[in-house]
Amino acid sequence: CLPQSSLASPSQYPSVKVTGFFQADAGWFHQDAANIVAVGDIQDGADFRRARLAATGDVAENVGYNVEFDFGFPGRPSFMDVWLEVRDTAWLGDVKIGHFRHPIGLGGLTSVKELTFIERGLPFAFLPFRQIGAMTSGADEEAGRTWALSGFRFPTDAFGGQIGDNGGYGLATRVTQVIAEDSNGGVVHIGGAYSLIDPSNDAVRYRSQPEFFIAETGGAAFVPAGIPSSVPPFVDTGVIATNKSHLFAAELATTSGSFHAQSEFIHAMVNRFGGSTVGFSGVSAQAGYILTGEHRPYNRKAGVLGRVVPNSNFGKCGYGAWEIAGRWSMLDLNDADIRGGRLNTSTLGLNWYLNKHAKFQFNYIHAFLDSPVNGDSDANIFAMRAQVDF
Amino acid sequence: CLPQSSLASPSQYPSVKVTGFFQADAGWFHQDAANIVAVGDIQDGADFRRARLAATGDVAENVGYNVEFDFGFPGRPSFMDVWLEVRDTAWLGDVKIGHFRHPIGLGGLTSVKELTFIERGLPFAFLPFRQIGAMTSGADEEAGRTWALSGFRFPTDAFGGQIGDNGGYGLATRVTQVIAEDSNGGVVHIGGAYSLIDPSNDAVRYRSQPEFFIAETGGAAFVPAGIPSSVPPFVDTGVIATNKSHLFAAELATTSGSFHAQSEFIHAMVNRFGGSTVGFSGVSAQAGYILTGEHRPYNRKAGVLGRVVPNSNFGKCGYGAWEIAGRWSMLDLNDADIRGGRLNTSTLGLNWYLNKHAKFQFNYIHAFLDSPVNGDSDANIFAMRAQVDF
Amino acid sequence: CLPQSSLASPSQYPSVKVTGFFQADAGWFHQDAANIVAVGDIQDGADFRRARLAATGDVAENVGYNVEFDFGFPGRPSFMDVWLEVRDTAWLGDVKIGHFRHPIGLGGLTSVKELTFIERGLPFAFLPFRQIGAMTSGADEEAGRTWALSGFRFPTDAFGGQIGDNGGYGLATRVTQVIAEDSNGGVVHIGGAYSLIDPSNDAVRYRSQPEFFIAETGGAAFVPAGIPSSVPPFVDTGVIATNKSHLFAAELATTSGSFHAQSEFIHAMVNRFGGSTVGFSGVSAQAGYILTGEHRPYNRKAGVLGRVVPNSNFGKCGYGAWEIAGRWSMLDLNDADIRGGRLNTSTLGLNWYLNKHAKFQFNYIHAFLDSPVNGDSDANIFAMRAQVDF
Repeated sequence: CLPQSSLASPSQYPSVKVTGFFQADAGWFHQDAANIVAVGDIQDGADFRRARLAATGDVAENVGYNVEFDFGFPGRPSFMDVWLEVRDTAWLGDVKIGHFRHPIGLGGLTSVKELTFIERGLPFAFLPFRQIGAMTSGADEEAGRTWALSGFRFPTDAFGGQIGDNGGYGLATRVTQVIAEDSNGGVVHIGGAYSLIDPSNDAVRYRSQPEFFIAETGGAAFVPAGIPSSVPPFVDTGVIATNKSHLFAAELATTSGSFHAQSEFIHAMVNRFGGSTVGFSGVSAQAGYILTGEHRPYNRKAGVLGRVVPNSNFGKCGYGAWEIAGRWSMLDLNDADIRGGRLNTSTLGLNWYLNKHAKFQFNYIHAFLDSPVNGDSDANIFAMRAQVDF
Repeated sequence: CLPQSSLASPSQYPSVKVTGFFQADAGWFHQDAANIVAVGDIQDGADFRRARLAATGDVAENVGYNVEFDFGFPGRPSFMDVWLEVRDTAWLGDVKIGHFRHPIGLGGLTSVKELTFIERGLPFAFLPFRQIGAMTSGADEEAGRTWALSGFRFPTDAFGGQIGDNGGYGLATRVTQVIAEDSNGGVVHIGGAYSLIDPSNDAVRYRSQPEFFIAETGGAAFVPAGIPSSVPPFVDTGVIATNKSHLFAAELATTSGSFHAQSEFIHAMVNRFGGSTVGFSGVSAQAGYILTGEHRPYNRKAGVLGRVVPNSNFGKCGYGAWEIAGRWSMLDLNDADIRGGRLNTSTLGLNWYLNKHAKFQFNYIHAFLDSPVNGDSDANIFAMRAQVDF
Repeated sequence: CLPQSSLASPSQYPSVKVTGFFQADAGWFHQDAANIVAVGDIQDGADFRRARLAATGDVAENVGYNVEFDFGFPGRPSFMDVWLEVRDTAWLGDVKIGHFRHPIGLGGLTSVKELTFIERGLPFAFLPFRQIGAMTSGADEEAGRTWALSGFRFPTDAFGGQIGDNGGYGLATRVTQVIAEDSNGGVVHIGGAYSLIDPSNDAVRYRSQPEFFIAETGGAAFVPAGIPSSVPPFVDTGVIATNKSHLFAAELATTSGSFHAQSEFIHAMVNRFGGSTVGFSGVSAQAGYILTGEHRPYNRKAGVLGRVVPNSNFGKCGYGAWEIAGRWSMLDLNDADIRGGRLNTSTLGLNWYLNKHAKFQFNYIHAFLDSPVNGDSDANIFAMRAQVDF
């Protein structure tokens, strides 16, 4: 160890980097008559899906932080990744404390700036996602292995707070492994995760929009009566009284040359008060191909697919990168007397990466809803996104 | 074209600059009895009119961004300039996508940090201003010419969102030209603009405060019953049912030596449902003279007047720059059965620029209201502002 | 004076530094039955007590600014230190304009990032704290003397606004002096302060939580009926009708070697409408000892104790700094017919400073409430905080 005096007041700490991004979306809906009856007459529109500013950096050689807020969500500016991390502790790997994404769900853990489609797949509906808590994690990048274990309070509100004497705790754990790789960065990844949650409000509720979301938050002066002010959930369990729910997740991903694909399956098991245990499932499978020849890298530290970077930027000397992609997702929220509905979505995507930090995305989504209450119905959605991050 | 490899991972992108400013205002009101009846008993007060933080920069040689929020407005932090811009495209000039000020209105397009008076002139009431959309624009700085054409969704809420199947679109276009100039930076500028709007809520409403605004947002504990919690509109058309409104704008500006002046006229034409077309007009004319000899520059890229920079900063060695200014504005919101009122305001201003980035402003405003409902009335306002930007 | 031209467009202005911090707290409550009756059944929980981002810097040699918002408080992002300051004016010392902490209260003026305990002591309940206004201040650092005088509008809402014709003004002044010091940085500090307030809503209300606070702001879906959604005030005068209140404050502080201590007394005198004058008092005394040998410095510019900086950072080569501390506070809100209650709190604290910018705090708080309405009751609180600042 060097004497502290040789490190005295090192000018590099605290380091601060300001980062952020926004996603401006527009969407057009074509619903059949039965779908309008089932979920309401969804309006075309445009909106900022996310708009974030963050400060991130280190306050010492082994302690980092991130303070990030989203200004696009309804409600106050919402807490996103707000944490401090002590790295390389003796027994606990990296220890993170604050508000962050807990380790379950391949789609949920992929950066929202690096999604192949405009929204994550339907199984995302089950995840605890960001909660206030603590996590220990690590990666053996050479061996292609990651692990994480976290505890949190649940359900945390949009501002990072949570109270309750009656439970209010959860845990999550995830392990991933590269099972095959080639010398050009190609990998095959598998992973599994589990979460146990005892919500303080003794309630869980799973629901999902059809993989696209816009909202009008200007109030009654902006949206006439009877019109949904945002894309409504197509499937919804309603509130289920419980003090224990389990999530089981399995994931598979690969990237090889200009091709990449990933799939995940999540099953939720809810032990109801005075009733039977009910189970719900979601599954998603997607593939993409980058027409201009780039390779989508694998993030060995996080165990997820990474960012597509164009070989040549759009401008006087190039056209950026172009990618086509397809996805199928299914979410089944029916079990026993819970009739939340079953939703299938098929999506075609076209992505134009202007450079490393700006992209336009175009999705055509066909949503097929099988509602126990309202019967079968269809919606077709055309959606666009402009994104820049820094 | 240089090979991309020679540009590989250039450390300068993304670039990030944090900017911001605030305006802290205080105001004192003296209303005659008729004015108190007409608009309520306006309270003296102090408030932050605007307080903004932004991150701005480039993510590639030809792609820039701006992410700006205002924390001073009532409501959540409001979206201000949140956009990405692809510069120098082959056929479309600069292309901007996101939430920004659409190209109509000389006062509206002048930076709020560089206003001669505390608020913009009354014709501002007609403008669509910031909406979510896309714009193509360009400037021939040598020829002193600018042009812009934009499309947007309308009305966008404070968070950049807008929905509606029933219209909800608008366009705006503006052209400006320098028609005379001298070798010392003096110019004479003319401009014209037009906007067509089909609001999704089938409603337009024009209204305005008397060129000064403070608000108390602390709720009932802070403001007794019956007292306006913010400076109320003096004139107001109320909601007019329409699916088509037109705006026509003409502008004139000059700067020469230490003198500068500008004027604009805006006419709104509203095609009412099941009724006649109604028209409303606003006009504003102002002039300023910088006592300490500075010249107010002309911004050839934006086609507006720019920032006064003192020859010597306030401090041990100087007194900053001092400016006097006067303005007259008129807004007539009466036509046919719409009795919104007519407002004339006369303002005297004194500006003290401490340095390039800090100033104090003092306005004396005489507002003369001719209300069809409440008759004639007067209000006198003394207002102050402290502003710093970075 | 140098000619301005030699300073023309100096690249260093405006300077911008992004700073911020967060405090993530968790707390567990054990109340006796009488305390649950008196204040409700307080829930265990976790929350971000504060989470702030700020931009700060200079726009000229003698003009600085700070623009800071807090995202953790209930309500919109709240205005914190939002001001501009002209330094070293001829007759007025440093002149600050905007929203900031007005000069009264040793605990209130100590940086919230440098508190020995998780919350300030109970006398804090009386302070005007941050209001919109102006202040002149100065320090003779060699002589160990500071002075400040401010005027403000009162009560300012969370967004820096305030209106009202019926009063709405306040003033505060504070003087401090070092009365003894040694060559190792040890000092003995005394100070006194006074504030006079005429609230525009003709009301004052003093109340306090038991030196710990968490909140759940997610609404009814998160907190069952009948449960306090945040730690409630234990003592509360209710609204007192008045147009004049006085605060008198006395303070004492010392730091010597690894020992530091401070104490303050604040008395509030409220001239009630149509009633007698009532008086309330608060007192707080605390001491800390840094086990690892560090010295807590004295901030000669602000007249408060400063930050503990570890001799060696936590990591492979060190354990950071460890501190133990104790405090007693009392707040008596009973006088005449006002029966706000009397609260005594005793706190034991353990602080672990990982490095200059990250710390963990552990507090055990015993709160003894003497309520005229509900009788005597007790609550024991165990609280933790993780803090990082940059």
